[in-house]
Parts: sequence; structure tokens; C-alpha cells
Amino acid sequence: MRAAALRGGRIHVRDDVPEPEPGFGQVLVQVKACGICGSDLHFVKHGHEMIELGKQMKGMPQLGGGEDRDLDFDADIWMGHEFSAEVLEVGPDTNAPAPGTIVTSIPVLMTARGIEAIVYSNEVHGGYGERMLLSAGMMAEVPNGLDPRHAALTEPMAVGLHAVNKSKVTQGDGALVLGCGPVGLACIAALRLKGVETIVAADFSPARRRIAQAMGATEVVDPAQEDAFDAWARVGRGRSPVVYEAIGVPGIINSVLQNAPVGTRLLVVGVCMEHDTINPFFGISKELSIQFALGYDPMEFNECLRAIAEGDIDVTPMITGEVPLEGVADAFEALGNPEEHCKILVIP
Amino acid sequence: MRAAALRGGRIHVRDDVPEPEPGFGQVLVQVKACGICGSDLHFVKHGHEMIELGKQMKGMPQLGGGEDRDLDFDADIWMGHEFSAEVLEVGPDTNAPAPGTIVTSIPVLMTARGIEAIVYSNEVHGGYGERMLLSAGMMAEVPNGLDPRHAALTEPMAVGLHAVNKSKVTQGDGALVLGCGPVGLACIAALRLKGVETIVAADFSPARRRIAQAMGATEVVDPAQEDAFDAWARVGRGRSPVVYEAIGVPGIINSVLQNAPVGTRLLVVGVCMEHDTINPFFGISKELSIQFALGYDPMEFNECLRAIAEGDIDVTPMITGEVPLEGVADAFEALGNPEEHCKILVIP
Repeated sequence: MRAAALRGGRIHVRDDVPEPEPGFGQVLVQVKACGICGSDLHFVKHGHEMIELGKQMKGMPQLGGGEDRDLDFDADIWMGHEFSAEVLEVGPDTNAPAPGTIVTSIPVLMTARGIEAIVYSNEVHGGYGERMLLSAGMMAEVPNGLDPRHAALTEPMAVGLHAVNKSKVTQGDGALVLGCGPVGLACIAALRLKGVETIVAADFSPARRRIAQAMGATEVVDPAQEDAFDAWARVGRGRSPVVYEAIGVPGIINSVLQNAPVGTRLLVVGVCMEHDTINPFFGISKELSIQFALGYDPMEFNECLRAIAEGDIDVTPMITGEVPLEGVADAFEALGNPEEHCKILVIP
Repeated sequence: MRAAALRGGRIHVRDDVPEPEPGFGQVLVQVKACGICGSDLHFVKHGHEMIELGKQMKGMPQLGGGEDRDLDFDADIWMGHEFSAEVLEVGPDTNAPAPGTIVTSIPVLMTARGIEAIVYSNEVHGGYGERMLLSAGMMAEVPNGLDPRHAALTEPMAVGLHAVNKSKVTQGDGALVLGCGPVGLACIAALRLKGVETIVAADFSPARRRIAQAMGATEVVDPAQEDAFDAWARVGRGRSPVVYEAIGVPGIINSVLQNAPVGTRLLVVGVCMEHDTINPFFGISKELSIQFALGYDPMEFNECLRAIAEGDIDVTPMITGEVPLEGVADAFEALGNPEEHCKILVIP
């Protein structure tokens, strides 16, 4: 079969990839659509550092490998974790939806060797290929005849829903979303889903601010024109906001500590892989809190799929392009320009 | 009257200080005892930076002054905010306890000009002097014939109680206290007061570890011998701890992010005045949270006074010395050695 792979820092397409064979509990699927995630872009450039940083933590599962094996950057690395697919073949003694069913799944595969993330792997195939394996127990049927291209956004939208849940925001709170990449936009959609009435979104890109409004932001701000906290003060009715940091570059956390009002809760969902500098004194003086968030749970994933299928979340404004496997490498480049693109789907 | 003051970076004693005169709502008191706080030590060395850092935050009240006036480091600065005192004279038209009553107070004075902190001021006197003014509405009578020297520890113990409340720790949680200075010890006492059964305390100083045990730590650890999180793992029964950071030097927050188990809640009550470096990726990978805490509210202050007076908190192990006003400068030096001293009371 054909699949795009990362090897030696470059994305290339192979057309001689052995067909995956479903084992017990597994299902072979035909990929219908797979979104390109910002973390994939980051991984292409900083994969080594991501792996090394992960190793510095005690007792944590390691990205892309186990305790006994490392990810090999000189071999093909399969990626693509935001996918929808059609069931082709069900593994032996496995209870799963019939062939032809459109599904999506949490990007986790149960194998004889244990649980493997479908994210960066030399062995487990992802959505940047024609076919892949899924675990029957992790799959969710796509309901309502939902367009598989929209179903592919279940995963990134679940990241936003989880962040919003983790922040314990209530309808009476107001939200300030810093950064309108797909993660920030997913937060906006989830905040709207939860009924939060005041949602201020900040991004330097006019295109991204337009998408933010389409996703539910009630006020957008260009930080080059007005500080995000000044914008919040205009519309926040004296409340301290719940802030969603969806930028993930050094300096953002400290700027929130410095500029946020007393008692502000900061939810960090932007993944900053570098060292960052903070002034704890700012946080202490204002009794701020920081909650870091990662991923989502199966309930949140399913809630997002339902919300998209029933029209409670409209992901259309986020999808700015589609490419075949041959276009993956160029799409990674194109996503560097927020004016041009937001979410590009790979249609293998 | 006589009082110790900070001037040009040095503490000296003046015996020609004009007597404070109580205005409406104010009470003149004779200081019985005043604890030396770690933040006072820090202020003597880094007062300028503390003031400058405070100015970098929007819309926050400024230490030691108002928007229209700065603290003058070349004039006398009065300090001392952990005090007990005897009522001498009640201001005009003011309802207050009768002369002779032993009181303590939140270190805040209402003046005709507004609310002033009794902490670092060119004008408002603190507990490092014979007499000072208190606000009738802020005072609390010391009950049960409690030793005024013990009542003086109400304020630092309230800092610990507030941190513990802010952490939302429950009896079923376990706690790991990093640093057994007065703030860490106050956290330990408050954790015990709240019925938390597993309290691990870490400090390099054997003397401080002994005090930690006396205050309620169920396990103490010397970080030079065993990592605090390894010690936690020995006794924590698989739980993630609520961690109290009561050290306040650069690097501690990141070491917690790096070494803490998944889902750990970090309460930062140690005041780090310098830039600090963190790896947000550690926090994200484990979905950690950080809550910064400062001060206490009047209910917490009163709860601590009651707990000390009724014997629920025994502050005796923390008090390691008493000095007259002439001894304040040397006491500031002596407090640099944790083997020798923990809390020194000034008895003017």
C-alpha cells in the first residue's frame, strides 16, 4: 500500500508498504481523511528533543517506543492521529462493526506487545497512509451520515473539550483564548458547547480571528493592536477570566502571570517544548493558578463526535485544504502560514 | 519611644521615635512580641527588586506605598507584622477592647488616607518597636490566657492554613512539604489540623526535620540522602501527593514538574523573587497543576489564633530565640542558619 512517512527529517511517500494484517481485537480500515496536527509539524523539526525531554521524567511512558526500544529517526516513522476510516476487514474472533462502516478512533492500538500510541512509530501505521489497524474496542461509529472529513476532526476537537473540562469553567465564567490555531479554536468550540457566554480570542492573524468568530468567539483581538487582557477588561464585566494558553511558545505563561487580573486561572494546552522563564512572584502576588492539560478521555472523544455529528460543533470553518499523500510534505510547509491555512486534511 | 528600623540596608535602633497617636478607629498598643519573618530577611537584601517587580504588574496595590508615593530606602522603614500586643489607649469615638487586653491583628491599618499594610512602611509602625497603632476592627482578642509570645505566631501559621485551604487538600490526600522553614512548618501544622494522615516533609537541616516531626510530619526526609518524591513513593500508597513548595528559590518548581507523579497538585507558597526556569512540557505530559498562594483571610487568621489558644496547634517547637530591640540586627543574621534558629521573637 501507499503511505507517507518521516525519515531523516523529511516526509516522503512510499508505495511498497506491506499491508497491515489485523490480529485478534483489531480491524483493518481504509483511511478516509486524516488531519495534519501542529504537533506533527513540531515533531518533524524537534522530534529528537521531544523524545529526550520525555526521558527526563521518571516513570512516564515514552513517546514512540517503550522502555526497551527507541524511535529510529533513520527508519520510516508513521504519523497521522486525527483520522476517520472505513472498516475493511475484522480480525479473527473480533467483535467489530461490519465492513463498510465509517468509524473514528482514539489513536491507540492494542497489540500483543501492549498498548501503542498511533502517533509517531516505526511500526504502528497512522492516518497518513491508505490503510491502518485500529482496535475494535477503541473505535466509534460515525453517526448521522456525517462527512468522514468532518469526523476526522473529532480528535483535535476533543483536545479542546478536555482542556475546557480540566479548567472547570462554568457558564458564569468568561474565557480568554490566547492563540487561534486548531487547539485554540477547539477550545472556543468547547466553550461555546458548554454555554460560556463571553469568549475573547486573541491572534495576530486576521484569517484566524475570522475562524475564531465562526467557531464561537464573542470578541476577537489583534494583540498587535490591543493587549489581550485590555480587551478582556473591556468586555469581562469585572470578572477574572479563565485563560486558555494555546500558543505554546516561551514567554506566554509569564506574560499571563504578569498581566492577568487577581485570581485568574490559566489552562495551558499549548505545548511549549522549550525552556521557559517565569516570575513566580507574579503568580504569588495574584494567587493565580496554572493547570496543564494533555489529550482527552474516551468520553470526551465520544462527546465531540456526537457534537460534530449533531451540528453542535461546526468544524467546517477550520478545514482550509485537502491534499493527497503526495501533498503531505508541501502541506506541512503551507501550515506555517496562518493566513493561508488552519487544518489541512490528507485524503489518501 | 524606641523602635528598630531599616535604613540604607542596615537595621538600627532609634530611641527618639515620636509616639504614635491613635485616631478614629485606631488603638495604641504596647508590643508584647513580634516574630521575624523570612520575607523581612529577604526585604533587607532585595527590597528594591521586590518593589520594582511589584510595579511590573498591572493594577496591583504596591508594597510599601501608594500609586503616588514610593518607599524611601534612605529613610527609616518600619517592619514587623507578626505581633501580639496589649491595648494601651483607644482612639476617639472608637469601640475596642479595654486597656490591658492582649490582642493580635491582621497587619493592616485603616488610616484617613486609606488601607495601609503593616509590613514595610516609612510611616506605619510595625512590631519591631515599643508601640504601634492597630485598627479596632482588625484586632482579635487573645483568648484562654494564651502566652502573647505564642499569639505572635498567629500570622505565620495563618499563611500555612491559607496555603492548605487553597490547595483543596482532603483527609484522603497525602502531602509532601518541601522546605521546613516557618512557612513549611505552618503548612505541616495546618495539614495536621485538617486531619491529613500522611505528611512527608523534606529539609536538608536535621534541626528543621526534628521541628517538622514535632509539628506533625509523619515522615521526614533529607533530600541529600533520598529524593523527596522517592520518599513519597515509599509511604504514599500509590497516590499522587499534594506538594507544598515552601522553599522559594529558582529551580524548585521545575524539579517538581519533572519528578512529581502524574496529576500532582503543586501549591507554591515559597516566595521566589527571581526569574525561574520551567519546562512546561513536564507539566503538560503529566497534567500537573500549580496554585500560587499568598497571605490569608480574616477567618483563617482567627481560626489559627483559636487553634493555638486551644492547643490544636503547638507553636512551641518553632520558637528558638528571643531578642530585645538591640538584638534585631544580629537575629536577622542568625536566622540564616537553620540548625541554630527557626523563629526568633523580638520582645521590645
